[in-house]
Amino acid sequence: MTTNHQIRLAAHPVGLPKPSDWTHTDEPVGDPAEGHVTVKVLVLSLDPAMRGWMNEGRSYVPGVKLGEVMRGLGGGRVVASKHPDFAVGDQVTGLFGVQEYATVDARMCTKVDTKLAPLSVWIGTLGMPGLTAYFGLLDIGKPEPGQTVVVSAASGAVGSVVGQIANLKGCRTVGIAGGPDKCKYLVDELGYTAAIDYKSADVRKALKDSCPKGIDVYFDNVGGDILDAALAVLARNARVVICGAISQYNATSAMKGPANYMSLLVNRASMTGMVVMDYMARYASATHEMASWYAAGKLKSREDIVEGGLANFNDALLKLFRGDNFGKLVLRVAAD
Amino acid sequence: MTTNHQIRLAAHPVGLPKPSDWTHTDEPVGDPAEGHVTVKVLVLSLDPAMRGWMNEGRSYVPGVKLGEVMRGLGGGRVVASKHPDFAVGDQVTGLFGVQEYATVDARMCTKVDTKLAPLSVWIGTLGMPGLTAYFGLLDIGKPEPGQTVVVSAASGAVGSVVGQIANLKGCRTVGIAGGPDKCKYLVDELGYTAAIDYKSADVRKALKDSCPKGIDVYFDNVGGDILDAALAVLARNARVVICGAISQYNATSAMKGPANYMSLLVNRASMTGMVVMDYMARYASATHEMASWYAAGKLKSREDIVEGGLANFNDALLKLFRGDNFGKLVLRVAAD
Repeated sequence: MTTNHQIRLAAHPVGLPKPSDWTHTDEPVGDPAEGHVTVKVLVLSLDPAMRGWMNEGRSYVPGVKLGEVMRGLGGGRVVASKHPDFAVGDQVTGLFGVQEYATVDARMCTKVDTKLAPLSVWIGTLGMPGLTAYFGLLDIGKPEPGQTVVVSAASGAVGSVVGQIANLKGCRTVGIAGGPDKCKYLVDELGYTAAIDYKSADVRKALKDSCPKGIDVYFDNVGGDILDAALAVLARNARVVICGAISQYNATSAMKGPANYMSLLVNRASMTGMVVMDYMARYASATHEMASWYAAGKLKSREDIVEGGLANFNDALLKLFRGDNFGKLVLRVAAD
Repeated sequence: MTTNHQIRLAAHPVGLPKPSDWTHTDEPVGDPAEGHVTVKVLVLSLDPAMRGWMNEGRSYVPGVKLGEVMRGLGGGRVVASKHPDFAVGDQVTGLFGVQEYATVDARMCTKVDTKLAPLSVWIGTLGMPGLTAYFGLLDIGKPEPGQTVVVSAASGAVGSVVGQIANLKGCRTVGIAGGPDKCKYLVDELGYTAAIDYKSADVRKALKDSCPKGIDVYFDNVGGDILDAALAVLARNARVVICGAISQYNATSAMKGPANYMSLLVNRASMTGMVVMDYMARYASATHEMASWYAAGKLKSREDIVEGGLANFNDALLKLFRGDNFGKLVLRVAAD
């Protein structure tokens, strides 16, 4: 009998998550019921949203309850199927949780083509982070050719796709990231017009210099001081897309609000929140379009893969929240 | 020769404006040039936006320069005209400034019917504040019948019109104002569904109680803690209209940003700034519609008129920024 190693939420973290916030459990891998499949999880996506799921109460979805397997997006291989559309060996993605095997309703799995891209891309650039970028930029940001699009966490799973789609749409793109290596990557590999290293630059001044006509679309993944700096440089009728606020997720004091929000009035600008789940009906067509860009080399993807399996889950989370990852952060749960 | 008494900006105020921020000057009233009119100013509108105009630098319009006559909306009577459409005796409104006589381009004046409403209404409910309410609510807030509309500074020049138009559109309306008299007025006279006294209530809790399905449209005139409380109670797809932030205009420390702005993400909500000038092309039709409501008794107006002429200008400003006015605050500059 195969053992399923799992990570469950033991305590709602205060500040950064720590090892004692988790319990490790072992269960036998179950047989799938009718309509279900059992998936061997190979890669686990590490997403900023996970921090919200660890909190008590609900945000845009209910939080993970104490004792439950931690929620997480993953990619894996079907090892048992009781659904006619899924065969053993199929490669799939879905909300598999932080565990080695997931037995789930087959309708919640998405079959993916690993000849086109590896599983780690299907949970990143061609998965939920990529879809978040796609709908947030195109539906909320509504960039027009020649406009200036600014992205924070610009080399990350969402930001890297925002910048590249904005480039494809004929925009000027300015990416904000931490450190010279990431900034070089933004310009040299992803095609950003300019990059700002928030660790060394005066971000507000750098935005003024690189956006002489102001920011038309600001896609925010980080909140805090960088959001404030961007608000100060908005163009008339700018759109601010609120996708996340990773700088604030582990704060133990009150959230910092954007002091420059009255720039919305001065510039007749809007700030709008988005949650990718609302666009579920359009996932297939968006994925199809992004996959064609990927196949044509127009949409590049970089993953930062942490090896070592579930034992490294908490360390991988810390890497994410410190911003130490370079590209989409993935935990390899099993080799194959 | 008639003397024009004027109030000019002597210093950019720090915090609340004080008498030494102004100089009083006397000039002879000039003859209008071709296409111009001379207006005897009878009433002056006291608006929160004036505080921004006193600052150095530009906000949505350039500020008033030191030595210039303070900018202000007024109503008055034409006393000399070199424009065929304007006759001596016509009642007009316009950006006349804080002075007793204004000689201005006639195209910048609006002729008004004082048989329908007094001049003090034409600079309030049927003037710029009313138009701000009309376009901010209808174009940005987009309220639908049965939805809940919350308004801050709800008995003021803008807020009182927002609430009444929302009522006309079949919405539930909740007004936030200071003190029991204003709250009673909101419900008994203006037809608000409920009123919240921010001076005595826990605003967030009171909003939760009075908006059991959440806030669909929040029309914000005040900023600060009340904006934060409203953000915490948004309904899915809510629209926040940023019209002003009177609680912050005289702050000498950094502006307080809305700490609860991530509610925009959770609720897929938007926060959008508006400036009434952008709707200039539609002023006439909007004024026509509001005047018909006013004539039918469906749009009530209350003015708080400060007597005593320009000598009381600074005191009247302080009354506005303390929130001590009850209704649209107007300074009577001359009796007739």
